[in-house]
Amino acid sequence: MTRPTVRLRPNRAPKLRFGFPWVYADELVLDRRTKALAPGTIATLEDAERRPVATVAVNPISKIPARVLDRDPEAEIGLDWLRDRLASALALRETLFDAPFYRLIHAEADGLPGVIIDRFGDAAAIQPNAAWAEALFDDLATALAEVTGVTTIVKNGTGRARTLEGLEEVTEVVRGTLDGPIPVPMNGATYMADLTGGQKTGLFYDQRPNHAFAARLAPGRRVLDVFSHVGGFALAALAAGAEHALSVDGSAPALALAEEGARAAHVGDRFTTHRGDAFDTMAGLASEGPRFDLVICDPPAFAPNKGALEKGLRAYERVARMGAALVAPGGYLVLCSCSHAADLARFREVSLRGVSKAGRPAQLIHTGFAGPDHPTHPMLAESAYLKAIFLRLG
Amino acid sequence: MTRPTVRLRPNRAPKLRFGFPWVYADELVLDRRTKALAPGTIATLEDAERRPVATVAVNPISKIPARVLDRDPEAEIGLDWLRDRLASALALRETLFDAPFYRLIHAEADGLPGVIIDRFGDAAAIQPNAAWAEALFDDLATALAEVTGVTTIVKNGTGRARTLEGLEEVTEVVRGTLDGPIPVPMNGATYMADLTGGQKTGLFYDQRPNHAFAARLAPGRRVLDVFSHVGGFALAALAAGAEHALSVDGSAPALALAEEGARAAHVGDRFTTHRGDAFDTMAGLASEGPRFDLVICDPPAFAPNKGALEKGLRAYERVARMGAALVAPGGYLVLCSCSHAADLARFREVSLRGVSKAGRPAQLIHTGFAGPDHPTHPMLAESAYLKAIFLRLG
Repeated sequence: MTRPTVRLRPNRAPKLRFGFPWVYADELVLDRRTKALAPGTIATLEDAERRPVATVAVNPISKIPARVLDRDPEAEIGLDWLRDRLASALALRETLFDAPFYRLIHAEADGLPGVIIDRFGDAAAIQPNAAWAEALFDDLATALAEVTGVTTIVKNGTGRARTLEGLEEVTEVVRGTLDGPIPVPMNGATYMADLTGGQKTGLFYDQRPNHAFAARLAPGRRVLDVFSHVGGFALAALAAGAEHALSVDGSAPALALAEEGARAAHVGDRFTTHRGDAFDTMAGLASEGPRFDLVICDPPAFAPNKGALEKGLRAYERVARMGAALVAPGGYLVLCSCSHAADLARFREVSLRGVSKAGRPAQLIHTGFAGPDHPTHPMLAESAYLKAIFLRLG
Repeated sequence: MTRPTVRLRPNRAPKLRFGFPWVYADELVLDRRTKALAPGTIATLEDAERRPVATVAVNPISKIPARVLDRDPEAEIGLDWLRDRLASALALRETLFDAPFYRLIHAEADGLPGVIIDRFGDAAAIQPNAAWAEALFDDLATALAEVTGVTTIVKNGTGRARTLEGLEEVTEVVRGTLDGPIPVPMNGATYMADLTGGQKTGLFYDQRPNHAFAARLAPGRRVLDVFSHVGGFALAALAAGAEHALSVDGSAPALALAEEGARAAHVGDRFTTHRGDAFDTMAGLASEGPRFDLVICDPPAFAPNKGALEKGLRAYERVARMGAALVAPGGYLVLCSCSHAADLARFREVSLRGVSKAGRPAQLIHTGFAGPDHPTHPMLAESAYLKAIFLRLG
């Protein structure tokens, strides 16, 4: 093989042989030759004794300059290889779901580092958040179409992960056509997925099991969904028979999609939206007393990184306190965090403290994570970002 | 009120005012008068300044000599009070489940410290694992019959918790009659619950959501259920359409109940049981190669307390390694722990290490806990004992 090689520094990256998929900058020999490699170059990784150990994707400007693509140092990374990875990922989703609406590729855990692919029936959105995937994008799209049969493919090149890889922002339909938002059936509800204009593609899928659990609590109940985005919890609750649901969000386009989804599922007559700041709105509602039977608060990541952790935890406590004040006696409070930096124990602790400060006794009845179409790499198990706790308040 | 009072030592039990439900021995004034109180005495708890703070149940010989029954220091603990607690617990279960088969009372989290009640349709089993519940057992049974309508009540007075409270072992039918095991419908399967002869009452209910998730992976698959007990995972997998299931357990009576459940659900022709040591059986099966598509290992608590933690973790790693060796490529491995001392992070770590030592790449697709009829007290959230991790192996 004539492809480049890159080399580990002596006695570094000890977890690599146990399956850890990343090589950090201080673990790799970053000599002039390696630094000159184009972002996304496929290379053979050698240990310090020049024994080949893996096939990697190299990006000299990234904090993770080498990502393991294959444990086989001679693996050929091309169409066939991409097809195999996609077929394996598809087999899992087809086992789990009756309809083709799911996250198909969840990056490292599905063997395609830095790549996110969400499927919406005959359409899919690819987020190539690593340089190698940007370089091989055409092959990736071809393999995706072949393996799944999707006819429309959107390239969603936005977000912080791409910036860190030195990739530019771009969103475009690269195959087929897209006529507005796609209706997504999930938990008996209908969601409208805007693949080119949304905040983030596939945002619905990760919360699927948590939407489902909340829906079990919803029949006949008055529901408040704060930080609602496109209505994830509210529409599932309405589909399950909620008496009424109110969605609060700061984004008018998101709420418009929520309303469109409610109409599509014929639950629009029980659905109200309010555009406004979540904290202000909760404070306003509090003046009317605790009158919702099920309150869900699914805020954006308040603690996206370690530096923001303490401030983020205070925000989660505040959400819990304000949310609890709106729950009728015997009702339910669902609190979510999508912060990487706040682990379950810390998030739960501050949430329970907030509920306690609201003067409400509580039972913790369920803890949920992202759905199984968001698998975790075994060596990155601590990275599970999404947590939802379900409380019953006295 | 003329009932006794007990008193906190100065500056002790700081978490009590935030809802912590226990007073430890070194936090209570254990003078001669308090030590003379009969186990199970209802008393008023005062702080060091003699201000009443709660209504407690006292057991001078327990490591937890006072358990908070009510934040109201003047609460009258009798039939009405028991009815209220039971009715509140019932409301949660009736929201969650379509049929009356569930854990109705999960001790502190349901406001009845030390009390477990499992419901099996018209029958229920009460575990009065605290002295106060033993003393008030007749009222508890009366309230239970009134609130739920159950006609048969079993008193299940076995297990370590009772020993710690100084209570004797006893199992008897205290109301109605019992004609052998009760068929329990759950996740589409039928389980046979032996309320008087089983290892532990209601053992099935805590794993309900994990059985359900495993069942999603089961259609058309060959299933191995190790440490099967009465067939929890195997019968759910068969109900979901597994091609075949083999249950392995050391208990002949447990396997007989599993077989009876399989016959009741008309899946007996796809079900095999093997009585034997789990480790020996797995070692024997390994000689035939990895030929199961779904392997579940739900062993007894290997790390029931901190002293047994390191040894227990080694046993969990061994289970993971041996289980992984039996999973066909692309198949699934479900690993459970019901050890209080092994938290999720430690259990997951050793399990993943075991899988890695078996030479198998893995994806972590789901993490589950006990079902929502096993709520957790917010101040005892760390005490969640049951964890299940679901892996897909390459």
